Amino acid sequence: MYTKIIEPRVSETDGVGHIYNTTLPIWLEAARNPIFKLFTPDDSFQNWKMIILNINVDYVSQVYFGKEAIVYTWVKKIGTSSLELYEEIHQNGSLCARCKAIYVNYNMEEQKSKPIPKSIREALEKHLYGK
Amino acid sequence: MYTKIIEPRVSETDGVGHIYNTTLPIWLEAARNPIFKLFTPDDSFQNWKMIILNINVDYVSQVYFGKEAIVYTWVKKIGTSSLELYEEIHQNGSLCARCKAIYVNYNMEEQKSKPIPKSIREALEKHLYGK
Amino acid sequence: MYTKIIEPRVSETDGVGHIYNTTLPIWLEAARNPIFKLFTPDDSFQNWKMIILNINVDYVSQVYFGKEAIVYTWVKKIGTSSLELYEEIHQNGSLCARCKAIYVNYNMEEQKSKPIPKSIREALEKHLYGK
Amino acid sequence: MYTKIIEPRVSETDGVGHIYNTTLPIWLEAARNPIFKLFTPDDSFQNWKMIILNINVDYVSQVYFGKEAIVYTWVKKIGTSSLELYEEIHQNGSLCARCKAIYVNYNMEEQKSKPIPKSIREALEKHLYGK
Repeated sequence: MYTKIIEPRVSETDGVGHIYNTTLPIWLEAARNPIFKLFTPDDSFQNWKMIILNINVDYVSQVYFGKEAIVYTWVKKIGTSSLELYEEIHQNGSLCARCKAIYVNYNMEEQKSKPIPKSIREALEKHLYGK
Repeated sequence: MYTKIIEPRVSETDGVGHIYNTTLPIWLEAARNPIFKLFTPDDSFQNWKMIILNINVDYVSQVYFGKEAIVYTWVKKIGTSSLELYEEIHQNGSLCARCKAIYVNYNMEEQKSKPIPKSIREALEKHLYGK
Repeated sequence: MYTKIIEPRVSETDGVGHIYNTTLPIWLEAARNPIFKLFTPDDSFQNWKMIILNINVDYVSQVYFGKEAIVYTWVKKIGTSSLELYEEIHQNGSLCARCKAIYVNYNMEEQKSKPIPKSIREALEKHLYGK
Repeated sequence: MYTKIIEPRVSETDGVGHIYNTTLPIWLEAARNPIFKLFTPDDSFQNWKMIILNINVDYVSQVYFGKEAIVYTWVKKIGTSSLELYEEIHQNGSLCARCKAIYVNYNMEEQKSKPIPKSIREALEKHLYGK
């Protein structure tokens, strides 16, 4: 799996004193940078490939300011052109959130989805859930 | 249903030129203010009740800078202490995103969920989906 | 002056319970949309002109969730290619923040600043501070 | 000085393809966590002390997605109850932004500013600019 350590920001807290729920999709996305780089090695937006189709986030327990959080990203399923991720946010040894995210490999110039190339598929397979 | 008009901000766009996917949960939440006010009429965070349990967002088509977007919020199901919302984001007459969001009416001092009071239930029922 | 009404979002509050200080530059920028449109009438980022050089924000008093805030934007000075704005955020009849922002009219393809055209200059002059 | 490495997020880019200008105040604030901790060792918002009075940001050159940015934070001046910071954001060996930020040590319960304690003053002095 991919692992990303996040140091919570004060700007990411809310009036109740926790990390706000809309912050978690931002952290989850931040942890997908190595996957984006597989599809767009030069990090250019002209050449961007990964278009999101769905996110499904379970808020399990509160995340707090002042302690590092960890985002774990697994590959759940590699379709012809789609990619399903399973992600968890942990803090202090506890599971705080779970997410399923579905992306498609999309060619923006041609405006259509494209098969995920074999080399990327092999790189992703190293991060399969349950492996 | 509740209706909230959003004027997209440049800060909400991404390098590809669209409104970024992590912005949509923020807009969807912004449109829930009248529901938050039902549960916390004085808008105080000491007295905050609505705790989110799950969001499930379908990204249907791109949202652009330069045109107003509209968020529609329906009440889908009122449980004993839980509340399920169904939401849509439209722009230019097209559906851009769909969301299901589940909240619980939570008493933070006692650290437990509470039944949704009858008066709030009646106010929410006016916004039931399909009505 | 330009006037923009902002309905604060829960996601824009912080753990202390106020609108967070990093939110104010976002609101101030959101209120500049009509100025951006003068320079880029088609709202396209390929054709974007207004590049920010400096912001200077005075935090005068707290902004709260639950009440509308108003952003007022005046044109302070129109240079050959630069534009200086003066902005205020008010809530509940009180001044909450003041900002000076300096932009330059920039041609990204040629990578250089350009004189502000006469027609834009005239449109901006209607919003001069003190007029 | 304090040093904070930031991995840019796609959600922090804008339609022009750069890190958006409203993101930089968020990064600058994120880099101040060790200073916030000096004043509020338990990271609790009930006990929060550092209230911002002013930020002044010079946007020197563009920041890009795909490469780490570094935020350097120096203490510029320690007043009786106020604290002035000088900050720089670098990427790829170039200066991208400069910021001056002024905070006050504030007791929210008593609603007044307080002298900065000697122990905090000594910890801050290790990070004085020019030292």
